[in-house]
Amino acid sequence: MEIRQVKREIRILGVDDAKFKRGRDEWTRLIGVVFRGGEWMEGCLQIPIRVDGDDINQKLAEMVMTSSHYGQLRVIMTRDTIFGGMNVLNLPILFQETGLPVIAISDSKPDMVRVKKAVQRICPNSWEMKYESLLKSGPIQSVKSRQGKAPIYIQWAGLEFDQACELVQKTATRSRIPEPVRIAHLFATSFVPDK
Amino acid sequence: MEIRQVKREIRILGVDDAKFKRGRDEWTRLIGVVFRGGEWMEGCLQIPIRVDGDDINQKLAEMVMTSSHYGQLRVIMTRDTIFGGMNVLNLPILFQETGLPVIAISDSKPDMVRVKKAVQRICPNSWEMKYESLLKSGPIQSVKSRQGKAPIYIQWAGLEFDQACELVQKTATRSRIPEPVRIAHLFATSFVPDK
Repeated sequence: MEIRQVKREIRILGVDDAKFKRGRDEWTRLIGVVFRGGEWMEGCLQIPIRVDGDDINQKLAEMVMTSSHYGQLRVIMTRDTIFGGMNVLNLPILFQETGLPVIAISDSKPDMVRVKKAVQRICPNSWEMKYESLLKSGPIQSVKSRQGKAPIYIQWAGLEFDQACELVQKTATRSRIPEPVRIAHLFATSFVPDK
Repeated sequence: MEIRQVKREIRILGVDDAKFKRGRDEWTRLIGVVFRGGEWMEGCLQIPIRVDGDDINQKLAEMVMTSSHYGQLRVIMTRDTIFGGMNVLNLPILFQETGLPVIAISDSKPDMVRVKKAVQRICPNSWEMKYESLLKSGPIQSVKSRQGKAPIYIQWAGLEFDQACELVQKTATRSRIPEPVRIAHLFATSFVPDK
């Protein structure tokens, strides 16, 4: 779907993953919040994903496309591209499957050398496929989302870099992190794995 | 704690309970969202509560008082006074324990005759204590939270009715339900009990 104009209350799905305990939990949760631009929340979605699994693309697409909000959603914004441990999202495939442009947002610049080592260590048998997915999500670019604040880092698929910047800037209403992702993150981090 | 003036960005905890499946789930979750007035979300809390149990007062107080937000919170707003099936909140006790005024908010006027029957049916051995807690939360009053919309119904403890009305009206920024409770409810209803 092409975004012709970024309306102030454009519907965006912000996505993050819940905390879990490695070695104990096989599953964790993907959290989606439906936001009107950077303004207010309209809905919340959840779907289970496998810890260190390979189902994030399929599950995120399913969460989006089975939601009653799907017809109104215009953009997906995710926090980073790695969920539930080492479950790696492929942005172009998510765009293809859902028809929705995707922007992955990172607080700080991902250190790809360190990420590669972590994938190799945690998933010795499947790291190559996961690392390939990481690379397929495209270059990492900095964006100044708010005046006078540190930049954030984005990857994107299904839209132009300029459009991604505009979306990020218009929705960073409360902090330098776009509101849909900030709120998905607050909810996601409220899951405290039992000791 | 006395509320002298309702600041636009007063910190409020909105509370609701997650969905569960009776007969299977022994526990469900209490969800708390920290809101700045009716404007924006600052944090999210969770604590387990027993389905049809008697721990809601203790657990809600614990969730509030162990939170890093406790020192800033000025008000608790809950969705209704019954959580996790038949786990009944006692507003004056919650106020006493936390020192924070409490407002319970209902979408429609609770039918106390029906509620009494439900408590008796579901908790035949403990219904009297639960029903007493219900009554202790005080009278149910209607409040027009938004111009041109149906009223909501409130119970309150630790503050005057006029103050409760002002808080409700100032925080009903997106619908007739005050924003902290509307958002807690959106999170809470995203828990879909597995079939």
